Amino acid sequence: MTLEHLPSAAPSLARLIQELNKLPGIGPKSAQRLAYFIIRLSDEEAQDLAEAINAVKQTIMFCSVCQNLTDVSPCPICANDRRNREQICVVEEPMDVLALERTHCYRGLYHVLHGVLSPLNGVGPDQIKLRELFARLRDGHIREVVIATNPTLEGEATAMYISRHLAGTDVKVTHLARGLPVGGSLEYTDELTLSRAFQGRQEVE
Amino acid sequence: MTLEHLPSAAPSLARLIQELNKLPGIGPKSAQRLAYFIIRLSDEEAQDLAEAINAVKQTIMFCSVCQNLTDVSPCPICANDRRNREQICVVEEPMDVLALERTHCYRGLYHVLHGVLSPLNGVGPDQIKLRELFARLRDGHIREVVIATNPTLEGEATAMYISRHLAGTDVKVTHLARGLPVGGSLEYTDELTLSRAFQGRQEVE
Repeated sequence: MTLEHLPSAAPSLARLIQELNKLPGIGPKSAQRLAYFIIRLSDEEAQDLAEAINAVKQTIMFCSVCQNLTDVSPCPICANDRRNREQICVVEEPMDVLALERTHCYRGLYHVLHGVLSPLNGVGPDQIKLRELFARLRDGHIREVVIATNPTLEGEATAMYISRHLAGTDVKVTHLARGLPVGGSLEYTDELTLSRAFQGRQEVE
Repeated sequence: MTLEHLPSAAPSLARLIQELNKLPGIGPKSAQRLAYFIIRLSDEEAQDLAEAINAVKQTIMFCSVCQNLTDVSPCPICANDRRNREQICVVEEPMDVLALERTHCYRGLYHVLHGVLSPLNGVGPDQIKLRELFARLRDGHIREVVIATNPTLEGEATAMYISRHLAGTDVKVTHLARGLPVGGSLEYTDELTLSRAFQGRQEVE
């Protein structure tokens, strides 16, 4: 959307609509709605939003250990003495760490790759944080690497790359179980998931 | 979403996610996605967004004539000598002006009510810009008021209120035609729209 499409909007408004329209998932209509909402905010609320955007750009950095986004390095998880320092869970993106933390079922450390191997898109081992992962593994404290990349072609290829790299070392490499999503139904499950669920069937306790 | 739900997110990131989550139509997941997108923007791009938010709050105001949002008062439409000054089109919101301007079929002036009459929600004639509309009509230049409120119960009630207020004056009051939306189908049109379309049937030229 260019300014020409908003001939009758005030320039400051048209500019805000354009900026909001650049955000992912925000089309021209949503951008308009958001802009009018922002205009109706109190001065203080609008400033809070603008400041939050500026603040995050100024303070956020990569954790020197796990490469997650953080305001302090090492990040609170890496600095936490109560986490199990013998396990590293490897994820693609920072959001995946949040998702796993919400389960409260993992107490080890993380490593954020910030991407997946994708040769077709020009993403090789040097474009994601693999070197940093292997450097962490070299010191010998790590006993298990839990690969939690997405169950996609590229996620699986990345998992394979890591596990091959660690073949012959005494680090145990695991990946998250494949199977039926809780609340799902057999009828609507794709064949690949169903066959993985079948192969990975577990004894009923 | 409170900070407690983002225990492992950096504080600056958690704050941005919270601020974004306050926007209409932006749930916790979208807020996360937007926040990570903003982190990946260049410093300049992020500043542009933050500045656009601040700028709009600093410069935007109501046009003293039509009450539309504008950076200069009177707004470009009210100040435009080539617009027909005998027609006023009454709309609920500033976005409705943009929608009508895009049709290029109306060359008169506007009046933005910033709401509709809604007694149940405590919105009476004094809570929307009706007084300003009637003040504009008093000077006698206006020959037609085109009511373009939404075809909802409250929009219709507001239209009725305006038309009753102008009864007995020589101002012609019209409202937008009701009928089948272009590209729609009879089969899926609700009965009310269909009956309005029937009543308002026009001779084929």
